[in-house]
Amino acid sequence: MDLENNLFMLPGPVKMHPRVLAAMAKPAMAHRSAEFKAVNKEIKELLYYLFQTKQHVTILSGSGTAGLDAAIGNLLRKGDKVLNITNGKFSERFNLVCKIFADPTEYAVEWGKAPDLDEVARLLEENEFKAVTLCHNETSTALTNPAKEIGALCKKHGALLIMDGITSVGSIEVRPDEWGVDICLMGSQKCIAAPAGLAGLCVSERAYGMLHNEASYYLDLKAHIDKLEEKNDTPWTPAVPLYLAFLEALRMLKEEGLENRIARCHRLAEATRAAEAAMGLRLFPDPKYASDTVTGAWYPEGVGDDIRGLLRDEYGLFIAGAQAHVKGKMFRIGHMGIAQFTELAATFAALEAGLYKKGYKDFELGAGVAEVVKRM
Amino acid sequence: MDLENNLFMLPGPVKMHPRVLAAMAKPAMAHRSAEFKAVNKEIKELLYYLFQTKQHVTILSGSGTAGLDAAIGNLLRKGDKVLNITNGKFSERFNLVCKIFADPTEYAVEWGKAPDLDEVARLLEENEFKAVTLCHNETSTALTNPAKEIGALCKKHGALLIMDGITSVGSIEVRPDEWGVDICLMGSQKCIAAPAGLAGLCVSERAYGMLHNEASYYLDLKAHIDKLEEKNDTPWTPAVPLYLAFLEALRMLKEEGLENRIARCHRLAEATRAAEAAMGLRLFPDPKYASDTVTGAWYPEGVGDDIRGLLRDEYGLFIAGAQAHVKGKMFRIGHMGIAQFTELAATFAALEAGLYKKGYKDFELGAGVAEVVKRM
Repeated sequence: MDLENNLFMLPGPVKMHPRVLAAMAKPAMAHRSAEFKAVNKEIKELLYYLFQTKQHVTILSGSGTAGLDAAIGNLLRKGDKVLNITNGKFSERFNLVCKIFADPTEYAVEWGKAPDLDEVARLLEENEFKAVTLCHNETSTALTNPAKEIGALCKKHGALLIMDGITSVGSIEVRPDEWGVDICLMGSQKCIAAPAGLAGLCVSERAYGMLHNEASYYLDLKAHIDKLEEKNDTPWTPAVPLYLAFLEALRMLKEEGLENRIARCHRLAEATRAAEAAMGLRLFPDPKYASDTVTGAWYPEGVGDDIRGLLRDEYGLFIAGAQAHVKGKMFRIGHMGIAQFTELAATFAALEAGLYKKGYKDFELGAGVAEVVKRM
Repeated sequence: MDLENNLFMLPGPVKMHPRVLAAMAKPAMAHRSAEFKAVNKEIKELLYYLFQTKQHVTILSGSGTAGLDAAIGNLLRKGDKVLNITNGKFSERFNLVCKIFADPTEYAVEWGKAPDLDEVARLLEENEFKAVTLCHNETSTALTNPAKEIGALCKKHGALLIMDGITSVGSIEVRPDEWGVDICLMGSQKCIAAPAGLAGLCVSERAYGMLHNEASYYLDLKAHIDKLEEKNDTPWTPAVPLYLAFLEALRMLKEEGLENRIARCHRLAEATRAAEAAMGLRLFPDPKYASDTVTGAWYPEGVGDDIRGLLRDEYGLFIAGAQAHVKGKMFRIGHMGIAQFTELAATFAALEAGLYKKGYKDFELGAGVAEVVKRM
């Protein structure tokens, strides 16, 4: 196993470009300097681009979960009714956070299935929910939820929509302003391929006007928005090296173009799904909602999580298993951020060889890779 | 001005060693891997060493302020009476955090003066404070508060002591177990010379038993302690590159030896104070409580904050100004972490030249540097 030279195909963290690593490793920079304000200014402008928004943006020195905590803690209060649509580990996390700060109701959907829109409409009609939480791209099940449609339902019923876009923003289309997403959050180590440790947030005018600061000092969302938007600054000490890496990763996204990145990730996902089909592997989520940033499939009979050790040790390929009750039953391949077709081809070469070694041979060697090559 | 090759003498962030920068810039590592658990295990052991503790330790992916937030939010509740001893910007921050989570009383001392121990004793006697907050080393005024003595008073009155050791732990003696500090926190970018973005915490058995998780999901202190101590893991996604850099910086501290680092910082501080005295500069804080990690002095008449621009642009020297009502009136030189005597000599060479250029000449050129050299 080689930690520094491998095929790193997890659904986050993802492979970082050498430019991003080099930016991170710069000597210490004072965070109240004009130089760091210039960094913040450029990050801010690139966040408006990333979120395709004209409303508010900011960044927190904390991982995606800090973003969830800040979104719920600063917007809702105990007694506020909130609907949590859950169909995987990360949407369930929203429910855990809401239990601390608000009064949540869970609409639990089977993992791998999309929520029933009629049921969401009914719940919104029959209850006075102040807010709805949605995990746009459920990394744990490799499923993309119908955010646009749920946004329209929230708009109709006047509910705020708080959306985890941690593994969608930057590699799957997300339009907070158009869809009516009041808080949308992203994580640095996913679709923009920066290091873990920062959460980016996009906040609507409506939600901005409702923010309070009674829940946390460190995760005061309004203070972070105001400091960034008005002064290109941060309220407290930021994780400077992560900001430098984040900026470089955002520059690379802009150079590629957001639409091009989204299109590339879609093509990578199509190739992954076709390759798996050609190998007789069955998708874990409802194919209609299969994600473009991570593909989840059932292990074939007789194969389990130990294949990941083989792939890692023999071929230097890192893919992900699964969590909770599907642990050992399915695996996930990430293809977001800067993932390339050649890497995907190499991934399937290793996966094919590995499955044969583990005794699963219900496909012709090369069949998976061929589907990738056809789409290159 | 050169951002990458300079004399970086701020009271944090401080200069990082190339070993630390190289560790940070490694390719992405999965945070649930055996390799990252090994990183956590070594960090944990080095945190026990750093804090000289046999109780609990953990680390948060957030800056020092996240540590303050977690300490107060997870230990206290609204209605809990807490005494905030304040004599600078960072002790005042404790008061702001306590206003969110508890019921604080401020004992405000003039900036640059130490609290009166008799007054602290009186306040503890006449009130039923559940906790006391103290900033051990007040970076804003370059003063070290008498933590051991205040710890003894807290013990006597059964109050919890929550201490900000952000610019003391690792370069000034701190003995949480012996002094009765219930929560002690440190910041990565200060005395151990790692990048900004992580907070280390040391928690007593007594405080550990009182932790709750009703204030925050992301900053759940007990979850962080339990995951690290029992599983060498983190509850949520950690800022992996910062952990790698933090580990390398802690290894370097261990190689030098905590006592040796403390002794070196003390000698650097003595040299700084002597050099400033030889140049006719007057310390800002009460000399009896002058800090060993940062030295604050009044600007001489006719000199103000613009000298920092000159020092930076002409000599590549970064020193700090001051905050709030003393802004423009005093300046601060940091000498914690891996600061060296040769760097201090170079600092005074630049400072002497800069003061002459700004018209302050009440000292013989070379007098400051000579005091540094005498102590090398």
